[in-house]
Amino acid sequence: MAKVIDFQTAPSQYKHWRVDYDAEVANLFMDVDEDGGLFDGYKLKLNSYDLGVDIELADVVQRMRFEHPEVKVVVMQSNQDKVFCAGANIRMLGGASHAHKVNFCKFTNETRNTFEAAEDDSGQKYICAVQGACAGGGYELALACNYIMLTNDSNSSVSLPEVPLLAVLPGTGGLTRVTDKRKVRRDLADVFCSTEEGVKGQRAVDWRLVDEIIPNSKFKETVQERAREFAAASARPLGLTGIELTPLDRTIGEDSVTYSLVEAAIDRESGQVTITLSGPDGAVPASMDDLQAQGANGYMLRLARELDDAILHLRLNERECGLVLFRTQGDSELLMAHEALLLDNGDHWLANEILKYWKRVLKRVDMTSRSLVALIEHGSCYAGVLAELLWAVDRSYMMLDEFDGDNRPMAAITLGKSNFGTYPMGNDLTRLQTRFLGEPELVETAQGNIATALEAKEAEKLGLITYAFDDIDWEDEIRVFLEERASFSPDAMTGMEANLRFAGPETMETRIFGRLTAWQNWIFQRPNAVGPEGALQRYGTGVRGKYNMERV
Amino acid sequence: MAKVIDFQTAPSQYKHWRVDYDAEVANLFMDVDEDGGLFDGYKLKLNSYDLGVDIELADVVQRMRFEHPEVKVVVMQSNQDKVFCAGANIRMLGGASHAHKVNFCKFTNETRNTFEAAEDDSGQKYICAVQGACAGGGYELALACNYIMLTNDSNSSVSLPEVPLLAVLPGTGGLTRVTDKRKVRRDLADVFCSTEEGVKGQRAVDWRLVDEIIPNSKFKETVQERAREFAAASARPLGLTGIELTPLDRTIGEDSVTYSLVEAAIDRESGQVTITLSGPDGAVPASMDDLQAQGANGYMLRLARELDDAILHLRLNERECGLVLFRTQGDSELLMAHEALLLDNGDHWLANEILKYWKRVLKRVDMTSRSLVALIEHGSCYAGVLAELLWAVDRSYMMLDEFDGDNRPMAAITLGKSNFGTYPMGNDLTRLQTRFLGEPELVETAQGNIATALEAKEAEKLGLITYAFDDIDWEDEIRVFLEERASFSPDAMTGMEANLRFAGPETMETRIFGRLTAWQNWIFQRPNAVGPEGALQRYGTGVRGKYNMERV
Repeated sequence: MAKVIDFQTAPSQYKHWRVDYDAEVANLFMDVDEDGGLFDGYKLKLNSYDLGVDIELADVVQRMRFEHPEVKVVVMQSNQDKVFCAGANIRMLGGASHAHKVNFCKFTNETRNTFEAAEDDSGQKYICAVQGACAGGGYELALACNYIMLTNDSNSSVSLPEVPLLAVLPGTGGLTRVTDKRKVRRDLADVFCSTEEGVKGQRAVDWRLVDEIIPNSKFKETVQERAREFAAASARPLGLTGIELTPLDRTIGEDSVTYSLVEAAIDRESGQVTITLSGPDGAVPASMDDLQAQGANGYMLRLARELDDAILHLRLNERECGLVLFRTQGDSELLMAHEALLLDNGDHWLANEILKYWKRVLKRVDMTSRSLVALIEHGSCYAGVLAELLWAVDRSYMMLDEFDGDNRPMAAITLGKSNFGTYPMGNDLTRLQTRFLGEPELVETAQGNIATALEAKEAEKLGLITYAFDDIDWEDEIRVFLEERASFSPDAMTGMEANLRFAGPETMETRIFGRLTAWQNWIFQRPNAVGPEGALQRYGTGVRGKYNMERV
Repeated sequence: MAKVIDFQTAPSQYKHWRVDYDAEVANLFMDVDEDGGLFDGYKLKLNSYDLGVDIELADVVQRMRFEHPEVKVVVMQSNQDKVFCAGANIRMLGGASHAHKVNFCKFTNETRNTFEAAEDDSGQKYICAVQGACAGGGYELALACNYIMLTNDSNSSVSLPEVPLLAVLPGTGGLTRVTDKRKVRRDLADVFCSTEEGVKGQRAVDWRLVDEIIPNSKFKETVQERAREFAAASARPLGLTGIELTPLDRTIGEDSVTYSLVEAAIDRESGQVTITLSGPDGAVPASMDDLQAQGANGYMLRLARELDDAILHLRLNERECGLVLFRTQGDSELLMAHEALLLDNGDHWLANEILKYWKRVLKRVDMTSRSLVALIEHGSCYAGVLAELLWAVDRSYMMLDEFDGDNRPMAAITLGKSNFGTYPMGNDLTRLQTRFLGEPELVETAQGNIATALEAKEAEKLGLITYAFDDIDWEDEIRVFLEERASFSPDAMTGMEANLRFAGPETMETRIFGRLTAWQNWIFQRPNAVGPEGALQRYGTGVRGKYNMERV
């Protein structure tokens, strides 16, 4: 599995999904091409999916927000007879490396979270219309929708058969959404998750697994009726026109990925990637009409898309690069002005979408299991949205005083009002609130310093950075740190970062990434699942997995 | 490591700890006997510990509550020069099976939680007086204390060197307590957890890692002064006399463990253990004086101690028994009356201690990674405290109507006021609140049925049980379930149960057991830690671990 995985796609290239737009309602059909798998060695039967199918789904969801703001309800459904979706493809999982399995689950989880949040973020509600078998990852797609409708017939059921059938856990939030979103009673959840054939009919409603059951004869009609009802109830404005998400300006080189505003420089020998983000390359649009006219070329949206793609590219394609260094260069004031246009027009659909997208991109950074470091050099533009990176990373280094021969503007951090609520983390706190859990008064102090260029001494005093070094120490200190970090076990770093990054309250999201994922990762290594006699390997052979019965 | 591990001990048998009682202050000295390890193959140098050391500590903590209610402050300290505690013994970990490592960490975590909670539960505060190196599990001992004092000298530091040194995580709550209890700023936590030599002096206070630093010359004196201050501030009553925790009445047989009120019958072929709990074998004490006179023989305390020991015995010594069936037999009304004496005298120290101990024992059941089932047969006494077991288990089966030839009293459940707040779970909710997260009104309905004997139909209607079966179906249904459960992968069951059992809010405790533990378990299997070239195996050889640098 060494080919480059590309997260960019477009409707004209879709193999597995189709959308029929019907004014405020979009009908989204899953129709997976058996022979369209991302890798060889498996067929995507019964609407089962691999990473390629999910990359398309993520693209659908993203375009629904930017290209189709007129849509208020998305109806997820199957275009195949007798099956809604059979979940993640088992043969793909059986053949995939541990790292691929883990990254596959992380990306699919992020996509589920995105369409689940679309209702709160943008008034776009996903409903799931289930006809036929809806198993495992299929039911997890449904669980992430905010309304589930099930045909009341003998062929249609929902199930999480992973435990009995495959000796692994449902990998995209299933257990967490069953207990914490659907709030299924715990003993019924136990029965449900250990029943291969799942639950159908009235029992599925009684157990809170679906919201509604409908006779087959009235199913399609009722689904569309419900979609129109939800659309009518949506507060989303009418008559919006979208913008086109044009292809990224991107060049993948031997050891770099270069975009218009983002450059990732890859040093495989040292296991490091340096991501440099550029400040605005143009003036602030004069109005929201101008911003809309700029479309995907607008600075704030373009930067978000490029950073998002770069992070995904590195996660999947550069797995031995355990350390990511963030740099910025540009005009902080201009950057703040670009962001201010969005903040001042938060009730404009496009401004809202761009800000919400930044929230997602920053969460994607939080969730990236690489050691993350920010370098705050002279000439940098850590301001507003980009200042969030300083508290998304594991630690930061800032240039102190003038550096010999460096005539760039003095390194400074500029806080904006966006740092106090616009981009919450998965734990629903801001990054500054999370950072200052022990000294919450420092959040207020920071708030009192909005719009001031804070140089190193001040930034250190306010607790905004980890270290400030002058010209004499800068290079040595960073070199020593990088060498040290490179000498640590990547697994221990992953575990440590997963525990240190999300202090404070937990949410369904942090539970999915922190708790469920960790257990799944554990099981994904156990011989009972992945050993030669394990259930994942034996799946489809007619022979059950052979288990070591010891409980740990 | 196949010998039977015994969790019972007594001060006369201690090898590693000593307590000097000084009125309201107990000075607890750690002085680990190098040659006193539980197994062969390692020496417990530098106050490092294995499970045996922790079994003694758990005993100390438990006796402090019951035998020494006069104690208001416990000062944890080292009796060895230059070292407080070096943490869990690395050679022991290197040689231990995966299952032993996991169970070792679980038990040590439970013990940390117990002395951490002693202040809130009983007004007994643990302070930690650190002189010398306090590393890894040593600092985790300190973190679980509620006040940390550190000598301000060049030899004394606190550290969590697991990640850089051993490629594993601190295993007893270290990362979680650093972020969530001490609320250390996240980037400083990153630096701290990746610095082998740790942090000392003023920086340790500035970073919130310790509460106070004291010059060596004044250390002992200041520690005792602080202990007396805390004792003076405690609301705990004066002049209390304890009871003796006499040895358990226990017989370990070939396939059973039998106590006075508890019997564990082990069926290794089917991988099942049946634990039968008996109702009271005597009348309710006439007064609290009588209860105190009964001491460890009192019904409620004796039952808790026996169940606690049985659970621990099964966890460590019967690892292939993946399914635990709970049964009760006895007089529900009498049981409720025994419990009522405690509830009505909650301000009496002994009543409080027994109730708080039940809270801990029930949490121990929650945390037991075996499939747990309750059988509610005719003649059973699931009432008050024992009714909690019905919602601690993964599912329950109740006898419905009369059974042919069975003349025991009809199966019934009796709720008491204790089911609505006396025994909260680790998530700080009651088991009924957790059970009815989706239908909170059912908690109130249940509350309206206190003190009524609820037979199967009523219990089912109220949502208190999973299934009710009559004489015709009972045996078959249970047999089919047991066979099915036995066919599942134990690892998948462990992961599933860990995710389904703790719906709702998270606490530091659920994060330690749910999130941190899962990541640690994952790392405990990774070649970078435990492979032949991994850091745990190479520790002490002078050669660093060799790591696969791929990030997953």
